[in-house]
Amino acid sequence: MLFQVEMLVKVPAHLDPAEFDRLKAEEKARAEDLQRAGTWRHLWRHVGAYANTSIFDVASNEELHAILTGLPLFPFMDITVTALCRHPSSIHSDDR
Amino acid sequence: MLFQVEMLVKVPAHLDPAEFDRLKAEEKARAEDLQRAGTWRHLWRHVGAYANTSIFDVASNEELHAILTGLPLFPFMDITVTALCRHPSSIHSDDR
Amino acid sequence: MLFQVEMLVKVPAHLDPAEFDRLKAEEKARAEDLQRAGTWRHLWRHVGAYANTSIFDVASNEELHAILTGLPLFPFMDITVTALCRHPSSIHSDDR
Amino acid sequence: MLFQVEMLVKVPAHLDPAEFDRLKAEEKARAEDLQRAGTWRHLWRHVGAYANTSIFDVASNEELHAILTGLPLFPFMDITVTALCRHPSSIHSDDR
Amino acid sequence: MLFQVEMLVKVPAHLDPAEFDRLKAEEKARAEDLQRAGTWRHLWRHVGAYANTSIFDVASNEELHAILTGLPLFPFMDITVTALCRHPSSIHSDDR
Amino acid sequence: MLFQVEMLVKVPAHLDPAEFDRLKAEEKARAEDLQRAGTWRHLWRHVGAYANTSIFDVASNEELHAILTGLPLFPFMDITVTALCRHPSSIHSDDR
Amino acid sequence: MLFQVEMLVKVPAHLDPAEFDRLKAEEKARAEDLQRAGTWRHLWRHVGAYANTSIFDVASNEELHAILTGLPLFPFMDITVTALCRHPSSIHSDDR
Amino acid sequence: MLFQVEMLVKVPAHLDPAEFDRLKAEEKARAEDLQRAGTWRHLWRHVGAYANTSIFDVASNEELHAILTGLPLFPFMDITVTALCRHPSSIHSDDR
Amino acid sequence: MLFQVEMLVKVPAHLDPAEFDRLKAEEKARAEDLQRAGTWRHLWRHVGAYANTSIFDVASNEELHAILTGLPLFPFMDITVTALCRHPSSIHSDDR
Amino acid sequence: MLFQVEMLVKVPAHLDPAEFDRLKAEEKARAEDLQRAGTWRHLWRHVGAYANTSIFDVASNEELHAILTGLPLFPFMDITVTALCRHPSSIHSDDR
Repeated sequence: MLFQVEMLVKVPAHLDPAEFDRLKAEEKARAEDLQRAGTWRHLWRHVGAYANTSIFDVASNEELHAILTGLPLFPFMDITVTALCRHPSSIHSDDR
Repeated sequence: MLFQVEMLVKVPAHLDPAEFDRLKAEEKARAEDLQRAGTWRHLWRHVGAYANTSIFDVASNEELHAILTGLPLFPFMDITVTALCRHPSSIHSDDR
Repeated sequence: MLFQVEMLVKVPAHLDPAEFDRLKAEEKARAEDLQRAGTWRHLWRHVGAYANTSIFDVASNEELHAILTGLPLFPFMDITVTALCRHPSSIHSDDR
Repeated sequence: MLFQVEMLVKVPAHLDPAEFDRLKAEEKARAEDLQRAGTWRHLWRHVGAYANTSIFDVASNEELHAILTGLPLFPFMDITVTALCRHPSSIHSDDR
Repeated sequence: MLFQVEMLVKVPAHLDPAEFDRLKAEEKARAEDLQRAGTWRHLWRHVGAYANTSIFDVASNEELHAILTGLPLFPFMDITVTALCRHPSSIHSDDR
Repeated sequence: MLFQVEMLVKVPAHLDPAEFDRLKAEEKARAEDLQRAGTWRHLWRHVGAYANTSIFDVASNEELHAILTGLPLFPFMDITVTALCRHPSSIHSDDR
Repeated sequence: MLFQVEMLVKVPAHLDPAEFDRLKAEEKARAEDLQRAGTWRHLWRHVGAYANTSIFDVASNEELHAILTGLPLFPFMDITVTALCRHPSSIHSDDR
Repeated sequence: MLFQVEMLVKVPAHLDPAEFDRLKAEEKARAEDLQRAGTWRHLWRHVGAYANTSIFDVASNEELHAILTGLPLFPFMDITVTALCRHPSSIHSDDR
Repeated sequence: MLFQVEMLVKVPAHLDPAEFDRLKAEEKARAEDLQRAGTWRHLWRHVGAYANTSIFDVASNEELHAILTGLPLFPFMDITVTALCRHPSSIHSDDR
Repeated sequence: MLFQVEMLVKVPAHLDPAEFDRLKAEEKARAEDLQRAGTWRHLWRHVGAYANTSIFDVASNEELHAILTGLPLFPFMDITVTALCRHPSSIHSDDR
């Protein structure tokens, strides 16, 4: 089941740079794991912004919630979730 | 070069149903052609809306403009374009 | 899997009253069927508006999309979809 | 009398983590009490957000105000209140 | 139980002037009846607009919904409802 | 001359609680004085918010500005002012 | 007593050009009369828009409402009203 | 050449009161100088807000930019600029 | 003196296609004349929209207003005007 | 390939003035280099704001992203990116 998730990261001014670097490294590792598992299908950067558009393939709303709130940078993110489904004009039975 | 395009179709009340069906059939054919060509990489429906999120892979802004304004339903669409690029945490060199 | 759906009905001025009555009767019948099936769990009217908040229990995004776009009044609705999941403070294992 | 209440929690950066944990535990206890009393009928988490949709069943506006402003996390919440009533297409005389 | 209701009337261009005059006369009669009954406590015009702020005193959400949707001009109104309660600094036990 | 004023109080995180209590007590005393004087005609709390809707009866814009900016909590308020006048359907010559 | 009024004129597509010309001529005559009377103190066009910023000097909210709703183009205007008062840094006792 | 400028002052919580008083005094002196020079034609306070509407008469965009960014309170202001021109219904050849 | 002007064209459904073609041809001719005169310095299309960003170089606000309201498609445009001036980091004394 | 980029700089209150001066000097040097290289084609200040409109000429979305996120003031900017292309009414084959 596919969801489009847009994440905008707002780095608070008070955040310690070393702590922020640590969080970003953890975030990157988590994102790579979830991509390898096929859960985080796509991940694109927005030009000129600390933001991304992602496509998640999950078994349930609960799984998506657990993934998103478990991201190391979650406390600093504005997140928008859009439920997706197959488009009748798509030529792919399972759009990857 | 990737662009996220969100299209919301607003069908005007005055539109003749037969004409609308013809336009939709043309739109579907055009979308399938562009998907086969690799230009329209992804096409997903928004749940509960006459709307989609699409990912286009084009050589230039001009190409994207020509494609979008050439869509049969273009006159009835609200379109949002977001320039994308590779995300540093993506595990794909060319995210498809 | 639960989704909150808010529907705002905008009746176009040109709509024939008899046709509108027919659509409303069909909408009501469809809503009652889906409630009996347990798919449309809750349905509340917003005070002072031709709008409702609904809770749907579906197996997939596709099922929800098929239901919403199949509603007789769908062409006249502004629809907002919010994916829900169990709240950690809920005392119900399956909040009905 | 039913009200839909949406709560978005914004945790201030300066909040002491231990204090925040204490507030969350109190909030959870309060939410469970009010659910057991039948006042807080439904409580669902929004996917990907520190937010919920709740349905309250109260005897008056005053009762709802007292409940909401008495929540331990109230100072950190953006709250939206929508008055609800029975929907003519609901098959339940008292939608629970 | 008090509610603040703001009504903005949008007169459609196609509305027959005689029909509109009839609806306005009915609206005025209804408003006067409800004021005499004490239900429609206050009614003020917004300067420079076809809009009003009203305070309703009703026994339930259902009663308010029935009143608002029964207004002759309801189909042409944008309505905002805000639930009110006694203010701790009010010197009136029942602010009229 | 009547004005609708909506005040939303945003308590800054850094505010000393004792200082805030002192300001609230002063605000309450001021509000009571102005109500007794007939200037602050109505004062209602918004359900679920640190906000109110007020109706002021003043001789001039200047008087209203002096009152609002003189409120002890003014520095922490978002204020919206709407000029009101008698509604042609009001049954009161001077709506109190 | 001064009010800033911003008027945006939206000409409906169905309006008969001759009727519109007649309304504009009446609007102009009314505006000139009110300027000569000192009530409509200032009247400026927004560059690139069918809109203006006006300053009115009236004895009461009622007077302003009567003027604005009596304008021949009122049915086609979006109007914003802002109550003004003397600025403490103004060097004019009665800013004209 | 006339411009409408609306300034909303947002005083940061951290600002030293003595420093803020000094800035306000400088701002007042600057505003008075520019009014005497005929550049700052009008200056009105918004009722209930730390905001003003101003009319500037400048020879160029550059002059206006230099004035606005040179105001002592500029760092704390949200500023909206609207280019104005003579209104065809104005009875003044040079509206002052 | 430079202004950024963004124009969004909204073609009304009722517009006769031949009339629309005539207006577009006139618009194009006018735009080319103004570009040759150096008044309309830049003209770019927004990708995926019937919209443009333009830079105008005019002697006064009046001149810009006359140009914009004289465009054949003006009645169908939403226009946003932003006053520009030289940027201190620009390496061009007169950025064309 | 052209992009319109609008940058609004928000200087955080906590920023050390010397550090901010250093960042601004670096930003200016970078902007001048990119203008000399022909990448940053245009750069205009918005009147009355710490904001600019820029036109970039880049070979790809990636290049634009690298440029924008590499700007010394990037962490303090709100950035809006609009993809542009040649306008059919432009008289320039490569609008500079």
